[in-house]
Amino acid sequence: MTTHDQTFEALCQQLRKAAQLESINSLLNWDERTYMPSQSGEYRAEQIATVTSLTHDCRTDRRIGEWLDALADHPGLAEPASDVATVIRRARRDYDRHVKLPSRLVEELARQSVTGQQVWVEARKANDFAKLAPSLEAIVRLKREQAACWGYADCPYDALLDEYEPDARTRDVAATMEGLRAELVPLVQEVLGRDRGVPRDLLNRHYPQSVQARFGQEMAAALGFDFQRGRLDITHHPFCTEMGPHDCRITTRYDERFFPSAFFGILHEAGHGMYEQGRRPDQYGLPTGQYVSLGIHESQSRLWENQVGRSRAFWTHAFPRAQHAFPDSLGSVPLDDFVLAINDVRPSLIRVEADEATYNLHILVRFELEQALIHDELKVADLPEAWNAKYKQYLDIEPATNAEGVMQDIHWPAALLGYFPTYTLGNLYAAQFFEAMDREFQGIDRLMARGEFAPILEWLRTHVHQHGQAFTPAQLLQRATGQTLSHAALIRHLRGKLLS
Amino acid sequence: MTTHDQTFEALCQQLRKAAQLESINSLLNWDERTYMPSQSGEYRAEQIATVTSLTHDCRTDRRIGEWLDALADHPGLAEPASDVATVIRRARRDYDRHVKLPSRLVEELARQSVTGQQVWVEARKANDFAKLAPSLEAIVRLKREQAACWGYADCPYDALLDEYEPDARTRDVAATMEGLRAELVPLVQEVLGRDRGVPRDLLNRHYPQSVQARFGQEMAAALGFDFQRGRLDITHHPFCTEMGPHDCRITTRYDERFFPSAFFGILHEAGHGMYEQGRRPDQYGLPTGQYVSLGIHESQSRLWENQVGRSRAFWTHAFPRAQHAFPDSLGSVPLDDFVLAINDVRPSLIRVEADEATYNLHILVRFELEQALIHDELKVADLPEAWNAKYKQYLDIEPATNAEGVMQDIHWPAALLGYFPTYTLGNLYAAQFFEAMDREFQGIDRLMARGEFAPILEWLRTHVHQHGQAFTPAQLLQRATGQTLSHAALIRHLRGKLLS
Repeated sequence: MTTHDQTFEALCQQLRKAAQLESINSLLNWDERTYMPSQSGEYRAEQIATVTSLTHDCRTDRRIGEWLDALADHPGLAEPASDVATVIRRARRDYDRHVKLPSRLVEELARQSVTGQQVWVEARKANDFAKLAPSLEAIVRLKREQAACWGYADCPYDALLDEYEPDARTRDVAATMEGLRAELVPLVQEVLGRDRGVPRDLLNRHYPQSVQARFGQEMAAALGFDFQRGRLDITHHPFCTEMGPHDCRITTRYDERFFPSAFFGILHEAGHGMYEQGRRPDQYGLPTGQYVSLGIHESQSRLWENQVGRSRAFWTHAFPRAQHAFPDSLGSVPLDDFVLAINDVRPSLIRVEADEATYNLHILVRFELEQALIHDELKVADLPEAWNAKYKQYLDIEPATNAEGVMQDIHWPAALLGYFPTYTLGNLYAAQFFEAMDREFQGIDRLMARGEFAPILEWLRTHVHQHGQAFTPAQLLQRATGQTLSHAALIRHLRGKLLS
Repeated sequence: MTTHDQTFEALCQQLRKAAQLESINSLLNWDERTYMPSQSGEYRAEQIATVTSLTHDCRTDRRIGEWLDALADHPGLAEPASDVATVIRRARRDYDRHVKLPSRLVEELARQSVTGQQVWVEARKANDFAKLAPSLEAIVRLKREQAACWGYADCPYDALLDEYEPDARTRDVAATMEGLRAELVPLVQEVLGRDRGVPRDLLNRHYPQSVQARFGQEMAAALGFDFQRGRLDITHHPFCTEMGPHDCRITTRYDERFFPSAFFGILHEAGHGMYEQGRRPDQYGLPTGQYVSLGIHESQSRLWENQVGRSRAFWTHAFPRAQHAFPDSLGSVPLDDFVLAINDVRPSLIRVEADEATYNLHILVRFELEQALIHDELKVADLPEAWNAKYKQYLDIEPATNAEGVMQDIHWPAALLGYFPTYTLGNLYAAQFFEAMDREFQGIDRLMARGEFAPILEWLRTHVHQHGQAFTPAQLLQRATGQTLSHAALIRHLRGKLLS
């Protein structure tokens, strides 16, 4: 082996070791939320802290910097999408982001994030924003400092956004979001102006939990989630996690009086899971086998949940099965009523309960406000008022309390600023991917109505999953769809479904 | 703090860290056997290997030796049962046993144990002892070398036994076992000579799995297993594991056509679990909070399974509940018939299916044969013949194949020599503990028949659980019962139950 090869191998081993420790932490976390006995939380926190510390040591090992320096003239770098170049480029990015932060800042952020979340639980319960404000102020200050350490192109928010959506620019995302808003607000008004006669109540009939679990699992498997390499369990907050190249676990929660909650939750998490399962197992732990961004990850969950799962074509195949599973609740319901009901659009206060269309307006509020906080254009003390004003403006609805307003999400108290826009980026990417494959297949509806979902998964495997971090999200989108980021596909999707 | 205090604190931190890593490995193992997706075994093995290696580094850290040297004149050592003395004494013992082994031997043993088990699976399936023999020969050779490294008082087998039953001597155990055999063989013959009219078939009626699970959980909780600090799941091979001071998990397997399998399995594992749950949580990871020996551990499982769970008094309380749970199978069965059926005695070939009385004869065969192997008085090639001869002699039964004879257990291929006698030690201790508390309570039957099990658990907490490793098993037994190890209590227990 050449010296380059040996150095590259050493780098890969180190990255794989860090990923392995993270995978062990994933199990500790998953178990805590699924099966751990109730009294064991304290010790579990200590176990997680130990593994987190081992991982951090592994990721900040100075030898990584030395290996990367020695690899700076690796001939493989000439082909940026090659495995070698992908590993070196992303390892350099990640390592630099680690070492640019003074350990004092890392520790303060970790501490503020933990106490922020604790205070948030109390403050939200007491509907007392003033109680939360000092934590948020500290977090905004620390996140600004973090942005300064990392550096940025145009504005500090760029540095934070880049953490979750590498290479995205605030300016570009803001422009697309603004375009989306300009069309979405009147579109929602138009939908609300029509009397669509949505038979909402049929979703509130009785759907037994065990039948929901069986039906959800059957449908997730039909779409392509591999239960030999994954599983489905119950948690209070649904999530998707992986703890190895062949071990991806999703969770959901069941409401026997609201069918969509668990079912679309399962499709959503299974969408995340199929992205995990679709990457190259032999590259596990390396940038070549890692997801590229949170926005792309979210596009996978949203595409299966919304473009597929809420389509008339999907239910043409699935509804007879649903009727068979829930004869009392759905036996005599016409398909069209069911499809109308699962596509109900109504402005609401709580993001996680929002419908497919208005959801993005919730994100827009947060995206604009967190930029203003980071860029010192808005004080934390003025946040509730600004929040309520934007909800009035975009959704024509106002929270009666801060608990159901500015304090509804855990993200800011957890120091996750720059994260929210990736939800809408996911919706935008999903619409663009789905249009591109629809063109390629000359109509996916035809396939879905026959229960043929393999071509959809195959398209995503080919154009998204297998690439790991070989391309930026923007490059991936360009290669897969021929387009740059745009709101047009999502608007077409919503208009076609809700107003045609 | 004095220097002694600081050094002691450093030692404790190191031991706690090692235990924490082991607890993480327990979760990785438990998950592998309960919920892990089928295709993830390979990566799981790598995760376990990584944590095992981290644990080994932690336990063999040279600083432990330095700290122990510095603590050699700690004034607390004057009181051997004090926390300080217990920690120092047992840490010294464990550290010495680690460092006395050359790493070449440790690695070879680990490798031979893994391949031994793999070969065993194949050889047993093919009923081909010759295939397994080379692995066993290598293992016997390595175990002899291990015994030589560790050192011993009378014979090499002492060193191996000491690993599982600290401070026990082969000579003493053999003498007790011989006394047991001399009374047990005729006792079994006497039982077989009577026509007890055991209505065995009633245990083969239909016992639905979900009802078994509910009933088993209810009874385990009634005996004192704390489900807020533990849980019960399904695995192919039942076991008990702990992954924290408040997280002890037991498993069982269900046979809908054989009631005792899961039920007594649950009581057995819950007995192990109550020992875990009864130790001092604040001493978790230290010798003061650790189980003292495998024999004592087994005594806890056996006492709940046999002395309690197979007693007429227990079923006086539990049988109406069982009849309610399984009305079709037990509704019209008299209590006495049921108690007779669960106490059926029959010589059989397979240890893990043996009844309470003949079980110890299975152990005796193994105990004598593994001594002979280690002491070079028996060649591996002659093992099958010697095995069959002893089964004929002690149980008056002979295996037709080596698969159901000498190859039935995984212990020897897994390099666990010195382990088997702890099963019978457990039965002996259990009988002695139970007699002592029976005397103290002036009849436990009275309590059990009323469903009062708390005094039993309390007695075990007081006399066994809370002491961790403060005493040797022999000291613990002496303090709790006033006796040395003896077969008399077990014989009295069996005679009272089977022949009165």
